Amino acid sequence: MRVLPPGVSAATFDRAIAQWSTVVGAANVVSAAAGLVAYLDPFAPGQAASGAASAAVLPAGVDEIRAILRIASEYRIPLWTVSTGRNLAYGGAAPRLAGSVVLDLQRMNRIIEVNDTLAYALVEPGVSYFDLHTYLREHGHKLWVDPPAAGWGSVIGNTLERGFGYTSYGDHAAQQCGMEIVLADGTVVRTGMGALGMGEGPGSAWQLYKAGYGPSFDAMFMQSNYGVVTKMGVWLMPAPPAWLLGEIQFRREEDLEAIVEILRPLRLDETIRNQAVIEGGLRRAAGLSTRTQWYDGDGPMPERAIDTMLDALHVGRWNLHYAIYGEPELIDVRHRRIERAFSRIPGAVFSSAKYAGDVQPAGGSDRNLSGIPAMSAFRMLDWRGGAGAHVDFSPLCPATGRDAMRQYTMTKARAAEYGFDYYGGFTAGVRHLHHVFAAIFNRNDQRQTESAGDLLRALMSDAHAAGYGEYRAHLAYMDYAAAQYSFNDGALLKLSETIKDALDPAGILSPGKQGIWPRAWRDRRGYT
Amino acid sequence: MRVLPPGVSAATFDRAIAQWSTVVGAANVVSAAAGLVAYLDPFAPGQAASGAASAAVLPAGVDEIRAILRIASEYRIPLWTVSTGRNLAYGGAAPRLAGSVVLDLQRMNRIIEVNDTLAYALVEPGVSYFDLHTYLREHGHKLWVDPPAAGWGSVIGNTLERGFGYTSYGDHAAQQCGMEIVLADGTVVRTGMGALGMGEGPGSAWQLYKAGYGPSFDAMFMQSNYGVVTKMGVWLMPAPPAWLLGEIQFRREEDLEAIVEILRPLRLDETIRNQAVIEGGLRRAAGLSTRTQWYDGDGPMPERAIDTMLDALHVGRWNLHYAIYGEPELIDVRHRRIERAFSRIPGAVFSSAKYAGDVQPAGGSDRNLSGIPAMSAFRMLDWRGGAGAHVDFSPLCPATGRDAMRQYTMTKARAAEYGFDYYGGFTAGVRHLHHVFAAIFNRNDQRQTESAGDLLRALMSDAHAAGYGEYRAHLAYMDYAAAQYSFNDGALLKLSETIKDALDPAGILSPGKQGIWPRAWRDRRGYT
Repeated sequence: MRVLPPGVSAATFDRAIAQWSTVVGAANVVSAAAGLVAYLDPFAPGQAASGAASAAVLPAGVDEIRAILRIASEYRIPLWTVSTGRNLAYGGAAPRLAGSVVLDLQRMNRIIEVNDTLAYALVEPGVSYFDLHTYLREHGHKLWVDPPAAGWGSVIGNTLERGFGYTSYGDHAAQQCGMEIVLADGTVVRTGMGALGMGEGPGSAWQLYKAGYGPSFDAMFMQSNYGVVTKMGVWLMPAPPAWLLGEIQFRREEDLEAIVEILRPLRLDETIRNQAVIEGGLRRAAGLSTRTQWYDGDGPMPERAIDTMLDALHVGRWNLHYAIYGEPELIDVRHRRIERAFSRIPGAVFSSAKYAGDVQPAGGSDRNLSGIPAMSAFRMLDWRGGAGAHVDFSPLCPATGRDAMRQYTMTKARAAEYGFDYYGGFTAGVRHLHHVFAAIFNRNDQRQTESAGDLLRALMSDAHAAGYGEYRAHLAYMDYAAAQYSFNDGALLKLSETIKDALDPAGILSPGKQGIWPRAWRDRRGYT
Repeated sequence: MRVLPPGVSAATFDRAIAQWSTVVGAANVVSAAAGLVAYLDPFAPGQAASGAASAAVLPAGVDEIRAILRIASEYRIPLWTVSTGRNLAYGGAAPRLAGSVVLDLQRMNRIIEVNDTLAYALVEPGVSYFDLHTYLREHGHKLWVDPPAAGWGSVIGNTLERGFGYTSYGDHAAQQCGMEIVLADGTVVRTGMGALGMGEGPGSAWQLYKAGYGPSFDAMFMQSNYGVVTKMGVWLMPAPPAWLLGEIQFRREEDLEAIVEILRPLRLDETIRNQAVIEGGLRRAAGLSTRTQWYDGDGPMPERAIDTMLDALHVGRWNLHYAIYGEPELIDVRHRRIERAFSRIPGAVFSSAKYAGDVQPAGGSDRNLSGIPAMSAFRMLDWRGGAGAHVDFSPLCPATGRDAMRQYTMTKARAAEYGFDYYGGFTAGVRHLHHVFAAIFNRNDQRQTESAGDLLRALMSDAHAAGYGEYRAHLAYMDYAAAQYSFNDGALLKLSETIKDALDPAGILSPGKQGIWPRAWRDRRGYT
């Protein structure tokens, strides 16, 4: 059965499709069911059909986007913007509102500028971390990207969703500088110093200073639906002369508390400047093995099997990964400080590797920490066997041992109740941790798939009761996550929607994204 | 003659004053001319009367602010919000639109929370850097503030205006985390994780992670007029075990180019992590001397007199101030790297001082770099004699030697033409410099006062022609600065005003701030 935009007849939709085809060429409008499979939620924990797109339109540039918006406004057809839509665990390229047309920007993939002196790039939405990395290498730039877990992701897409990576530039939103945005009415805005209109390239401060003059809007265009970001500046790390990648393994679950308490001061005093990761044993083991080698029963993996596996694979219950970049003499001093600090935890096992120049570490996580995008994170899909999929629970955690232990304990217990392992870890900001737990399931197994969805809802409810909130959520849980931010009768969400209505009165752009519904679609709020 | 809000009769205004008095108490409403002197622009380069306030209202808390807003809305009386209004060079506490009522938040001066573990404070607008510093010392917190040039400034006020300081936490906007805001309609919003409604204090992530879930609005409430910020989180630097303050003096004007080229890589690789300052010779000399000791003629100080003065005072043409905080062994390595790098510049003179523990350096700039607020910057007012005043030209400068030299040369030449010395310097971000030039004048000398205003306009026009924009502007030049950000027919300012009209349809809050005029007052845009 053909999917149509809500409230739009087949005949009207055909006219819109025809007009879009005139703008971008028929080859760049996807409306056949076969083509639209790419726009389904690949790892949907519930009913995938709920967020099915009615079509996809792939523009080649800003003028085409403006023309697409005019047509969408005329017919009141909602568009769902994706840069490339590669983050499969949060919904991929699927829209929140079923019947939306995906505005897929993957063809806009120019790397507009790379500046060695001032260490930045200006890119379009279709540029992936792989693309940018390859470009930097091929053109001899001495600059690193900071890759997220999966290197195929869009630099703009990942940043707008507040993704993060591994190096000292791992807080991607913090490394963003300057945007070009097409608003719902077709107006092209450049933020910050870009509004001086000096164009791109040397001499422009667009990618040098975020705020410009007056209010700064860039952060408002992240995790929202206020405009279509068509260009973005990203700061890049100058290739360091040397670096050290360290791993420290810890034996006991309860070591987590001490790890966080020792790590926080080292992050605060900048001894550790990268987004260090405290990786749970199973997640670390998944890079080396699969679950069925150690346990093939139902329900969560028993503690004894976990112990056996970790011992055999030489993996800790917790595994801290950190990096030090810079001059060798500074690296050595900082390395000693770090190892000395963590040696207070009994049984800690230390290892490290030093690199210099243009070496390419072999392993996936080492590659990420060395500024080289990889896809090794996808090994997790093989962990449980079958058609591997996952959906993530991503609560923000204060950087205290007590909070980390509390979130870990709660999550592990609830996961076990629904038959899932604790598969997760903590990525360390300075004053907070990003806690990410993945519910891994076989999407050909309907009961497992549904359990994953039920578990997610339970975890979010637990988190809220304990005073925690998610920093990000899968399509199906966007409204639920937004509803948790309920201070003063939901004043923040109301502010979001007041601005939404002012900028997009027809409600054309990505209705429902992060729980923000335009007036026209506000009745669609809910949990699917 | 009594100043009234525009379009409001004396009788109506009296009613409003009476109602506000009921809310805050008569003692906290200022309407007599004598009291309103405190709300005049103290260093106005043009006609001070243009921005005179009709009254000031000083609330004690959020509920009073809400009541004040209701009354202002009823009578359509514009309010001009100041935290404490202490930045005299940009207009002090004076409003942009003459006849506005100043909403003065100085009585709201609670330090709500200080968290040692996670290194932050939550403060109200009336809290100055002096207040917060004293509180930290008195309560034994091992945390530093990052003071701006004048320690009497409000922490919130300075941050909202994107002020900066000297230490590694010198980018104040970047160290802000979490806000409480009263919107024009009285709605109280908490941003980021604050919207979880966990209240203040331990367990809340409000001051730990900026973005929360969905769009992040904090940066939109900086340099704008969208709401009244009533609480703000600020990250604080854990007191370092030791620190080194370094000065490097350079002899020649043209050394500026090499200084910037050497400094940038050291900022990029984090060898220098503080907001290092490249201080011009006159600004450095003003801390030690006054101009009349060396020259008392008209017009700019001649080069020969400058040379004589700099030699006698042992001051460089340029003077780089930097700091290194942390473990002694790391300080030493970084210090050697820095001195080695700058020794490439012939004639460079190095000096440094080491501190540890709770020592209190004596000098003003050393105190600022040691987290101790000071008022020594005010010595500049004595530089030229008479009733010292200054108005600042603050262009953003790409962190390249070529751009810095170009801005310096242009500014110096234009200043000389109007009879002013080059009194300024560059504060180093990573990829940009904040260039600040002060036109110092005797405000009892009408010709000097008017020349300062003329010079400012000429400098802004020069900057725009050369592709530069201001990061901040005095009241009188806010519209002019905003107009420079003109890409695509002023699309950014239009976006600002679309949001303004959505959030404040009656145009009550700070009309004209940073060039943003609400619909009701849009005809007031202009250069006074």
